[in-house]
Amino acid sequence: MTGTAARPRIAGDREDAVLDGVLEALVEVGYDKLTFDLVAARVRAGKATLYRRWPTKADLVVAAVSQVKVCPDNDLDRLDTGSLRGDLEALTCGDAEATELLPSVMAAIVAAVHRDDDLRTQVEEQIIRPRYELLLAAFERAQQRGEIGPDADLALLASVIPAMAIRHSVELGTGPTTEHMRRVVEQVLLPACAATLPTPDPQQSATTTG
Amino acid sequence: MTGTAARPRIAGDREDAVLDGVLEALVEVGYDKLTFDLVAARVRAGKATLYRRWPTKADLVVAAVSQVKVCPDNDLDRLDTGSLRGDLEALTCGDAEATELLPSVMAAIVAAVHRDDDLRTQVEEQIIRPRYELLLAAFERAQQRGEIGPDADLALLASVIPAMAIRHSVELGTGPTTEHMRRVVEQVLLPACAATLPTPDPQQSATTTG
Repeated sequence: MTGTAARPRIAGDREDAVLDGVLEALVEVGYDKLTFDLVAARVRAGKATLYRRWPTKADLVVAAVSQVKVCPDNDLDRLDTGSLRGDLEALTCGDAEATELLPSVMAAIVAAVHRDDDLRTQVEEQIIRPRYELLLAAFERAQQRGEIGPDADLALLASVIPAMAIRHSVELGTGPTTEHMRRVVEQVLLPACAATLPTPDPQQSATTTG
Repeated sequence: MTGTAARPRIAGDREDAVLDGVLEALVEVGYDKLTFDLVAARVRAGKATLYRRWPTKADLVVAAVSQVKVCPDNDLDRLDTGSLRGDLEALTCGDAEATELLPSVMAAIVAAVHRDDDLRTQVEEQIIRPRYELLLAAFERAQQRGEIGPDADLALLASVIPAMAIRHSVELGTGPTTEHMRRVVEQVLLPACAATLPTPDPQQSATTTG
């Protein structure tokens, strides 16, 4: 508690608290007006301490946004359930608190993402791509199991869930609920996947006459 | 040509030119930094002239964004083609030049839309809702024709196209191409709609034994 704070480090719970503060500040003032000074004052940390952990504003913001969880911790064991329906349910069961914040966070960074190449690259590599790849992997497993036809456009199918989530955030101003995403899976995605299977010939499949 | 410009009005081609200038400025500086001064200088119009036509910044920006055409002029005769596939094709054949601009325009306003209630209401009422209602009407006509089952969630189905277009803009930084939207219609939407129809009993439909 005393005297050893010459080079304080930020980690663990303290890191989470700082990043929560960054998210709040981001939603309040937007990316352009967010400064290390503002964050330092809000979370009562030294500016130099923040800089040591996150050298640039893009680093700080991407770390904060990465905290907004929309699926169970990228834990592959929980995501590979053995069926496409199960995998997609696992990937879309949002953390209610997190998804509520999502639209404002997205709104706060999207303009800057389009203007700032460093931020754009980081958002793409650290936020968008990893989540998309988890989804794509679920569709690839389904294809290997025969739940999706061999000619299906997996990239297109894997983009439906992020698309519906983004629209919810941008247009409706609220994060998608787990219930909404379940309807997307049941009423849009699973039928689209089923339609990629070769049509069974009813007579063949009924009696398999040789 | 001379002397009658005491209260110049903006209309027709001149209006289009001014709104094009607003779009360009919007993409360059973002909504927050856009001012009537900046627009006036760029399009060589008097500030008072602009104010008379568009009393607020939100009015000016919404007018400009409304110009970005994504479907053929809301012309109902061209949109009601008699089949769901035809209607959706008509509603998604983007103006290539317009959709190229779309992501930057969206990026420029989305943060402000979330912060500014006046802008938000106008964007919702004048841009998002009219386009969504054209789509919804196409699904309603399809339901009446029996192309979609009676229990289908038309609102969910009608949100797929805007969702895929928004994602393209926000994540990929490019407007959706007509070809991309055609794949969404063929591979996602039409199968999802077909799945809402009552499953035909193959034996019944084959021989209709009474």
